[in-house]
Amino acid sequence: MNIPLIFWVVPVASLLALVFAYFFFKQMMKADEGTDDMKRIALHVRKGANAYLRQQYKIVIIVFLVITVIFSILAYGLGIQNPWVPFAFITGGTFSGLAGYFGMRAATFASARVANACRTSLNGGLRLAFRSGAVMGLVVVGLVLLDISLWFIVLNYFIPEMEAGYKLMTITAVMLTFGMGASTQALFARVGGGIYTKAADVGADLVGKVEANIPEDDPRNPATIADNVGDNVGDVAGMGADLFESFAASILASALLGAAAFIGSGETIQTNAVLAPMLIAAIGTILSIFGIFLVRTKEGATQKQLLKSLNIGVYVSAVLIVIASYFILYFLNIPNYVGIWGSIIIGLLAGIGIGQSTEYFTASAYKPTQRIAKSSETGPATVIISGVGTGLISAAIPLGIIVVAITLAYSFATGFDFNFSNLNIGLYGIGIAAVGMLSTLGITLATDAYGPIADNAGGNAEMSHLDPEVRKRTDALDSLGNTTAATGKGFAIGSAALTALALLASYFEEVRMMFVNFLDKPNELINGVPAIEAEFIDFVHHYNIHLMNPMVIVGIFIGVLAVFLFSGMTMNAVGRAAQKMVDEVRRQFREIAGIMEGKTEPDYARCVEISTKGAQKEMLTPSLVALLIPVVVGLIFGVAGVTGLLIGTISSGFALAIFMANAGGAWDNAKKYIEEGNHGGKGSEAHKATVIGDTVGDPFKDTSGPSLNILIKLMTMASVVTVGIAVTYHLL
Amino acid sequence: MNIPLIFWVVPVASLLALVFAYFFFKQMMKADEGTDDMKRIALHVRKGANAYLRQQYKIVIIVFLVITVIFSILAYGLGIQNPWVPFAFITGGTFSGLAGYFGMRAATFASARVANACRTSLNGGLRLAFRSGAVMGLVVVGLVLLDISLWFIVLNYFIPEMEAGYKLMTITAVMLTFGMGASTQALFARVGGGIYTKAADVGADLVGKVEANIPEDDPRNPATIADNVGDNVGDVAGMGADLFESFAASILASALLGAAAFIGSGETIQTNAVLAPMLIAAIGTILSIFGIFLVRTKEGATQKQLLKSLNIGVYVSAVLIVIASYFILYFLNIPNYVGIWGSIIIGLLAGIGIGQSTEYFTASAYKPTQRIAKSSETGPATVIISGVGTGLISAAIPLGIIVVAITLAYSFATGFDFNFSNLNIGLYGIGIAAVGMLSTLGITLATDAYGPIADNAGGNAEMSHLDPEVRKRTDALDSLGNTTAATGKGFAIGSAALTALALLASYFEEVRMMFVNFLDKPNELINGVPAIEAEFIDFVHHYNIHLMNPMVIVGIFIGVLAVFLFSGMTMNAVGRAAQKMVDEVRRQFREIAGIMEGKTEPDYARCVEISTKGAQKEMLTPSLVALLIPVVVGLIFGVAGVTGLLIGTISSGFALAIFMANAGGAWDNAKKYIEEGNHGGKGSEAHKATVIGDTVGDPFKDTSGPSLNILIKLMTMASVVTVGIAVTYHLL
Repeated sequence: MNIPLIFWVVPVASLLALVFAYFFFKQMMKADEGTDDMKRIALHVRKGANAYLRQQYKIVIIVFLVITVIFSILAYGLGIQNPWVPFAFITGGTFSGLAGYFGMRAATFASARVANACRTSLNGGLRLAFRSGAVMGLVVVGLVLLDISLWFIVLNYFIPEMEAGYKLMTITAVMLTFGMGASTQALFARVGGGIYTKAADVGADLVGKVEANIPEDDPRNPATIADNVGDNVGDVAGMGADLFESFAASILASALLGAAAFIGSGETIQTNAVLAPMLIAAIGTILSIFGIFLVRTKEGATQKQLLKSLNIGVYVSAVLIVIASYFILYFLNIPNYVGIWGSIIIGLLAGIGIGQSTEYFTASAYKPTQRIAKSSETGPATVIISGVGTGLISAAIPLGIIVVAITLAYSFATGFDFNFSNLNIGLYGIGIAAVGMLSTLGITLATDAYGPIADNAGGNAEMSHLDPEVRKRTDALDSLGNTTAATGKGFAIGSAALTALALLASYFEEVRMMFVNFLDKPNELINGVPAIEAEFIDFVHHYNIHLMNPMVIVGIFIGVLAVFLFSGMTMNAVGRAAQKMVDEVRRQFREIAGIMEGKTEPDYARCVEISTKGAQKEMLTPSLVALLIPVVVGLIFGVAGVTGLLIGTISSGFALAIFMANAGGAWDNAKKYIEEGNHGGKGSEAHKATVIGDTVGDPFKDTSGPSLNILIKLMTMASVVTVGIAVTYHLL
Repeated sequence: MNIPLIFWVVPVASLLALVFAYFFFKQMMKADEGTDDMKRIALHVRKGANAYLRQQYKIVIIVFLVITVIFSILAYGLGIQNPWVPFAFITGGTFSGLAGYFGMRAATFASARVANACRTSLNGGLRLAFRSGAVMGLVVVGLVLLDISLWFIVLNYFIPEMEAGYKLMTITAVMLTFGMGASTQALFARVGGGIYTKAADVGADLVGKVEANIPEDDPRNPATIADNVGDNVGDVAGMGADLFESFAASILASALLGAAAFIGSGETIQTNAVLAPMLIAAIGTILSIFGIFLVRTKEGATQKQLLKSLNIGVYVSAVLIVIASYFILYFLNIPNYVGIWGSIIIGLLAGIGIGQSTEYFTASAYKPTQRIAKSSETGPATVIISGVGTGLISAAIPLGIIVVAITLAYSFATGFDFNFSNLNIGLYGIGIAAVGMLSTLGITLATDAYGPIADNAGGNAEMSHLDPEVRKRTDALDSLGNTTAATGKGFAIGSAALTALALLASYFEEVRMMFVNFLDKPNELINGVPAIEAEFIDFVHHYNIHLMNPMVIVGIFIGVLAVFLFSGMTMNAVGRAAQKMVDEVRRQFREIAGIMEGKTEPDYARCVEISTKGAQKEMLTPSLVALLIPVVVGLIFGVAGVTGLLIGTISSGFALAIFMANAGGAWDNAKKYIEEGNHGGKGSEAHKATVIGDTVGDPFKDTSGPSLNILIKLMTMASVVTVGIAVTYHLL
């Protein structure tokens, strides 16, 4: 197969992204890091973050080796997997790891510089923080596109021609394994990073704020550096790895779905359907770079204006990709391209909708958070009750949005003709909706990564005793960062759900590929039924993937089980790790003389070490659960059980993730709302009640909630790449 | 069709249950109610409870009228429902309402008498409390069996003979509607009762214990009577209505599944398969009465001995029903009766297993609760975090038990032959497992209802200033009641899940009944495939109830949405209603002079009224959600959407219910564990932290959690009885 010329847009976009990432990084490095104090503190944080990442990557490498060996046995020993799979798996993990490393490197170099920039102007601070965040955003999309480009070229060269479009099915199926590598890497980044950051945060708060009565980010608190490290390893590296995976998996799943949907439509159409998601992502990346340059603000801007300047960049990119994708689909000559274009728009709108609903439920400008703040008048118990109640209700909106999005994306792609012969193109529509949602990831991830950078800049300003005016500026940036972090979280969960659904559809296609011969003439009548319909019926029947089969229901129950078990484990992990941090901070206050008077520097490194060790130890069991359950279910219950499992995991995991993220966000902002002087203000009983709510919310919103994003994608991905096992060997 | 002689065991068992209920009630009424103070307080509670029930039944009657009109339109106007349905619906609601009324009446008459009996002996108190609880248990099972008997006789007489076993399918399908009436009644009893009891409890605690620093059940607290009323309307009437429904629905669903599974096996076998679940329930009821008489204890018994004496009654009944059901199935000549007997045993074991796991995760004798107690040393935030973490993990065990139970009940019933022709008998096995779990409900419900009676007896003793020795005895009874309440909650949720799954299977059979002609010769080959298999394939294909259909997945997402929305709503409802109670209690302390000195009696009635009104107002919206969603989903997405909906609701609702019940129970007992002198004991900071945990847990374990039991059954039931709508009219 000759690679069409237009394909080369993908590697070009990838290189552009990486070049601009490098450019923004260099630009940031040129900025002054400020006073000696500022440099010293930034160095502490940077060293801690690097130490953590080194430690984590050590464990990840071992896990990768084990999994690669298993894949090799499956491929070379049992012959139920493509020989390229182990390599694709490794590059996915490596590239994701590199993206995390570069993103975090930029973030840790940026914080002091942003604080220093804020000494002269707010606009300078915003631009520096945002462009440092853009390093992360662009490295992520750049490396994903690079990996996709390389593998597409390599596999096209090495995999022999096959009949009837099977070659593209094989290529895209192998490429999907690259997503499995990214997913495994993301698991450890999110779970480990999430436990790290919240163990440090909860530990720092419980002793520092509550017992010793010193403010946030006070340099006398031994856990404060670990807390700042945590923002980087959790919110930067963790978030980056999470979205790296969504971006890669949504493109790759859509490519596979495209190959399957148009297998009987001739090589050109099929190739174009495979290229479409890649091109949309590539053009979206170029438009993201353009959007990043649009973000600027004037001095003395209000928070609203700051938000507006960020939003201009995001929305302009989004509008442009909507227009561009119409021409891409038209140019590629995709059948029903208007309908599929509709699916892209649906995906984009769904992403915005979920982000908006997150903001509504977690920002103090709206009723839900204000009601939680009000409930503090009757103490912490009612704060928790109303936060849980609101969080549960808040899950309904994104679930509803996803329901509408799936229905419409599917309907548009099929042209509202729900005939069986259109099922595959409908699934392609769902996949491409996910690509649409993520197409401008370059800039949306920049706004996400901006948050922790601003947060750390504030921490740096506080710890190095800068002028209150500077702290005020970093606070303005930080407060904006909280809003973008909230919508970013919603976006990450929503895209994870849609990506997981696209992966689920790919799972079906992979099973189908092992069962049937894809048909040249799908509409030829066999026994009075079109061939494609007869084939579907056979397929459903052969694997018993219908809802009267109790094994499907059993699978769904196990899926829900996995979600509850996994999030309970991560929640308790934070509790245990935080307990160790509390003990250490108490010990330092007790044993190291002069800390409280600011005469002696506390032993920051020891706290960093405790968080690191705690996170490493605690992340293993839940990760094992996530990796093993799909394989075990496949071995016992076969394909029917696995499909049930995945649907159970995706649906309940998505709901629980939203509940946790929103409850946590709302508690956080209810506290801030009171600190602004409502219901008695700082130091009142009401304030204390919301501080408790905020602490409870920490592992909700930053550990268990986001880890579920990974769980739903990873379990689906693991099922996709081990599909051969479930098909070949199963007990029931 | 002639009704076989053995059927008459069912009405006989029903009458026996009702006669013994009457006997225990009379026996209890003969006991002395004690001092004037005791009588006065009991009267307050009784009046409050009656007032609440009257108010609730008023609203329920209106809802019933509306639904009956809708059913009548469907039956007489559109002709898509059997004409008997509206009547069956009404009797189900009425009988359930009567059971709630009688059970609560017994409970409210018993409390002072139990307290009084404790003035002379512990054994006397236990027997009186337990036998008063038995009134509830026996009225529930007696009325269910009575209603079933009557309808079976009436429908057999009026519904004309049809070919090929269709008559029994029709009879059992109509009878299932009786369960819909019970379900609707249970919805209001559980949701309304749950909101009532926790609004009063939280309100009483927040002002009484925390602000005014007076003990639990102190007569100076204006909300204390409302709190005691709440135990009766929530834990007695609510729990009773919940299990009334499970008992009825599991029997009726199994009857329908039996009629469907053996439709081609001749009239005798089919009739016997329909009678089997009824007979097992009937014999189980007689054995429950026997078990109730076994419960006695000697004076000065330890808590362990008390628990043992209760357990003897429960376990002897269980062992006897296992033996008896073997002979029932053998005598009825059911094909593969040994396998189906295995399913019954699996059901019973699953019930015990779920109860045990609940006890492990919530009793202070075990590690999970002790760890939560320990986490109180770092304050309320860690208490909440570890409670949530433990609760989430604890959901995995019952989910796992249900997974194993479904798999084995299905496998046993099919004789491990998973051929298509055995699918129906496998589903019958799942239904009959639910019947097995609930077969000895007469006595298990007695142990559940015993709890709130003992609790109220303690309240009565406290408020009427009885001798501390008496209070010690009632405390022993109460503490035992907490254990039985915890296992009872687990049992209620587990049986709800299994019942809902049986109902889901009935849903499939009802749809199938509208689509295919059940076959006389299921194994005849058509195009090389057995007829029954061909029919199944057609059926699955026609309704698209396979997992590649996005509408199924959409349905599952909506199911999860319903669960989160519903439980968030009930949670917030408690918050709001409790807020009003807090305001009122604060007002009374402020405005009514002499309350705190014990000179003036507070205005108890006003608090009762506030809880009543709050519960009535708050229960409507979530109830509407539960009733409307299945119909709306059916109208838009058809059968495929509804099946997805139900599976999504049952799986995630079950998990969330267990999480909430166990987290709440564990917080409650962590507090008690500290009150026993651990981690600083009563009054310490650790104790305060766990009091907050306990208050948060209140709506978890007594409102939102148990309400989910109803949601999963009601939504399935509503789908079953409105199946004609989804089949006939739908948008997509």
